[in-house]
Amino acid sequence: MRDDSLDRILDAAYAGMLEQGLRRLTMDDVARRAGLARVTVYRRFARKGDLIQAVILRELKRFLKAFEQALAPLPTPADQVTEGFAITLRLVRGHPLLSGLLANEPETILPQLTLEAGPYLAVAREQLAEHLDTPDAEAVAEMFIRIALSFVLIPDSAIPLGNDDDARSYARRHLVPLLPSEGIN
Amino acid sequence: MRDDSLDRILDAAYAGMLEQGLRRLTMDDVARRAGLARVTVYRRFARKGDLIQAVILRELKRFLKAFEQALAPLPTPADQVTEGFAITLRLVRGHPLLSGLLANEPETILPQLTLEAGPYLAVAREQLAEHLDTPDAEAVAEMFIRIALSFVLIPDSAIPLGNDDDARSYARRHLVPLLPSEGIN
Repeated sequence: MRDDSLDRILDAAYAGMLEQGLRRLTMDDVARRAGLARVTVYRRFARKGDLIQAVILRELKRFLKAFEQALAPLPTPADQVTEGFAITLRLVRGHPLLSGLLANEPETILPQLTLEAGPYLAVAREQLAEHLDTPDAEAVAEMFIRIALSFVLIPDSAIPLGNDDDARSYARRHLVPLLPSEGIN
Repeated sequence: MRDDSLDRILDAAYAGMLEQGLRRLTMDDVARRAGLARVTVYRRFARKGDLIQAVILRELKRFLKAFEQALAPLPTPADQVTEGFAITLRLVRGHPLLSGLLANEPETILPQLTLEAGPYLAVAREQLAEHLDTPDAEAVAEMFIRIALSFVLIPDSAIPLGNDDDARSYARRHLVPLLPSEGIN
């Protein structure tokens, strides 16, 4: 399959997920939105679940790219953790598909973000761990991801995190101490 | 309402949630299981959602009591955090209702444990914070709860946490550093 067909399918699925939600979206809808034959869609994604996972993975990779680009210029590991937490909350809250599904169809998106989140967690962990200079980089990376995801899944909190400054001061106090002393390289 | 009627309702609802799941359970089922008139159940819980929340809160309070009793004899804050994490994973994984619902009806229990978890988080946070001798005890307590809950919600992990010893060594390395230097009293 040419890459532009794959992109068209993922774009169409994204638009469908946004407008119709996960439950109502069909593979036919995706084919129609993409202007492709059904068989073309099915050749690439045998099941709707695979297609949804591919859309979520693409969004995750886009997020991770924006995250890395924002953190690269920052001088210290502590700065990166602090800003990284603020950026994560901001990007996640402003993500139209994620916030829309959490508001309108929580029962179908929550399993993806919890019990079935293994593949997404693995991608994020691997990428974040590359920047951590410690023997247990994967465990430290996973901890940061779990904490950030927790604030997405459980918005109620005793901790004020309504804006970037709140998020930064929370991260300085509670997340920077998780950093191995060797730091992020 | 006499307390024994309340207990009977909650016991009946617990048994119904365990056997029928959240979705299929009706208030009539609960009344029948409790051997009480429907009106008696409705007088106490106007909606099924209120009853389910009351059952979950009772389980949470039972868990918190077992947790406190297990930690009280431990000498240092670090020991309490280490053992507390191991106990939490063990009790949660062995909880028949929680593990049953996560396995069989994730779409109905997950919202309770995430988007609607505010009331449960508040109860746990308040109790745990009482033992933390730091000005931001609530925030520290909430962090511990969020991390433990994350391993319930997202079981896939790069971190081996299959038994108590795994959980303890993870907690010593990654959770004890979250403790304010003043410690748990």
